[in-house]
Amino acid sequence: MQDIILAHNKSGGTAMLDKLAGKKPLFTCVIGVTETAKIHGISAAGENPEITDYTPPADVELLHLGKCRCIPGVPVTPDGIPTPALITMSALKLAEIPTLVVNAGLKVKPYVPFVELGGCPGRDIRTGKALDNAQEVMNRAIIAGENLSKTADYLVVGESIPGGTTTALSVLLAMGINAKGKVSSSMPLNPHELKIKTAEKALKAAGVEASEFAHEPIKAVSTVGDPMQPAAAGLIIGAAKNVPVIMAGGTQMAAVLAVVNASNPEVLGNVAIGTTRWIIEDKTADLNGLVAEIADVPVLAADIDFGVSRFDGLKAYEAGVVKEGVGCGGATISAILKSKGTITKDVLLKEIENNYKQLVNSK
Amino acid sequence: MQDIILAHNKSGGTAMLDKLAGKKPLFTCVIGVTETAKIHGISAAGENPEITDYTPPADVELLHLGKCRCIPGVPVTPDGIPTPALITMSALKLAEIPTLVVNAGLKVKPYVPFVELGGCPGRDIRTGKALDNAQEVMNRAIIAGENLSKTADYLVVGESIPGGTTTALSVLLAMGINAKGKVSSSMPLNPHELKIKTAEKALKAAGVEASEFAHEPIKAVSTVGDPMQPAAAGLIIGAAKNVPVIMAGGTQMAAVLAVVNASNPEVLGNVAIGTTRWIIEDKTADLNGLVAEIADVPVLAADIDFGVSRFDGLKAYEAGVVKEGVGCGGATISAILKSKGTITKDVLLKEIENNYKQLVNSK
Repeated sequence: MQDIILAHNKSGGTAMLDKLAGKKPLFTCVIGVTETAKIHGISAAGENPEITDYTPPADVELLHLGKCRCIPGVPVTPDGIPTPALITMSALKLAEIPTLVVNAGLKVKPYVPFVELGGCPGRDIRTGKALDNAQEVMNRAIIAGENLSKTADYLVVGESIPGGTTTALSVLLAMGINAKGKVSSSMPLNPHELKIKTAEKALKAAGVEASEFAHEPIKAVSTVGDPMQPAAAGLIIGAAKNVPVIMAGGTQMAAVLAVVNASNPEVLGNVAIGTTRWIIEDKTADLNGLVAEIADVPVLAADIDFGVSRFDGLKAYEAGVVKEGVGCGGATISAILKSKGTITKDVLLKEIENNYKQLVNSK
Repeated sequence: MQDIILAHNKSGGTAMLDKLAGKKPLFTCVIGVTETAKIHGISAAGENPEITDYTPPADVELLHLGKCRCIPGVPVTPDGIPTPALITMSALKLAEIPTLVVNAGLKVKPYVPFVELGGCPGRDIRTGKALDNAQEVMNRAIIAGENLSKTADYLVVGESIPGGTTTALSVLLAMGINAKGKVSSSMPLNPHELKIKTAEKALKAAGVEASEFAHEPIKAVSTVGDPMQPAAAGLIIGAAKNVPVIMAGGTQMAAVLAVVNASNPEVLGNVAIGTTRWIIEDKTADLNGLVAEIADVPVLAADIDFGVSRFDGLKAYEAGVVKEGVGCGGATISAILKSKGTITKDVLLKEIENNYKQLVNSK
């Protein structure tokens, strides 16, 4: 399919694309927060770490309302680069894809409908006690996934959680995946050392040896993970029993893949990762390597290109800012597939630029 | 269709049945509580009015889990007659109909996934200030309805809110519908006088003349309604723009119909009420009369018959206990329709009896 890159496990990816072309997806976006994001230098939050509590609810407000309500304007990096929710919103709108927000654990609730799973915000992983009720949240997410899988031809599961690549790293290490230096960052300069130091502190605080939780995913996320992980994993496990699932995200989804693989590996034949070209081309990370080590599901990447955009705020994506989030890669892939290729990357860019212009002007 | 009664607007009902046969529904259940239910004698709560806070969450736990978690056993009347959620659960299970719970305003949250709309429990309507944010809840429900309508061939909207026929009465009066003596009760002896007295006190406290809010549904529910009403109305308005909707309930749904009719009457061509034979045959109430006065949508009734049951707890339904709730009529109708009549009332009764036996034994 045009504008979708087969990035890993090409035969599996081709089979998945054939299966999904023209079909009707349901897009879900799992949102949560973790205090880990407030560690200086971890996320692109800049001088105001509290803003990370507002980013996920603001992102999903944008999806449903075309504007944010819990903050003025839209989420941006310290340099003013807009949230990838702008891409997701544009893709979902163009392809008329229904959307359901899922709350995995928030401090600030969005002013839109969302599925509640009883989760809580995540603690700083350096406490070694990240989550209290991960098993319960996963169980409820499985119920939601089972029911939603009866309403759509396939499910797309995106995420928005600041600090999520650091918690992905620590969960992957706890589960025995050699993930050091392989997780992405929303910043061009990937702070690997800080992430590794944080993850190692977390493991130490939890008294966990690397790979100790290879077969205990709930313990891994409960000690050093974030709330998005068990919620997304549960949705995927519940849905992929019945229908295909696109895990829409970058290296954060590698941690979710590890959790699913350790819980219900039998569903993985129905699963692919859907991300962006920016993640695949990220020299500071290695999503394909992580996937190969965990479970060899296909990786598909939306071939979005902002290099030709007339807006500097979008062009910046080509310099390695943001890269992924709010399921923007998976949403784009499913928009292309639902339209059987009528929605191209050029059509999408025009829509994104129109929405960008309106949102920046209305700010 | 066998086992479905055309109770009102038969030509519209026949057309609706033709449209829905064999199609895939999504069942939603809107749950909430109101302090109004705690007025002595209003609901079948018996000596312990606080139990009404637990009934709706327990009902939806039964739908998803096959058992309750927030209470031991299952919700029952003071005489031990089981909740209609038992019927709903059996119908949804037999027909494999996906289910989504919607929280309109609860005190006790269920241990299952639910859609959150930001609503609050309702105050005693005798304050004249029943709800704080009905417009916001309705707006969010419209967004949910719009999105869910893209995932299913049609939507079924059920409800569970104790005290709901009294709040229905007061809203109908505020909107100029002559509803005195026409709303049902879950008790065989319908306490009309108490309900009318309560509704009149509510209107007086709010300083509202009967029919003053005929064109102001949000004011009607905000002063003398309950949280289920704006949430269910919003779901219906959002969904019925795109797909057919079955309003699954008895006379409580008449109030919701009045709200929808005053807000977005153009969607009503896509709407029918789905209820039970027990409601249609209720000599103490008049659903058809209410519907005729509000907006002439079809009324369909599931021809469930517990007279032949081997369990006294179920037989009691034939004496006019319970009658409707948790969308049991609409769920049964959609199970019959989805199975193209393979699921008959006899098949359903067997399933209900099996589930009843298990639940009573496990208590």
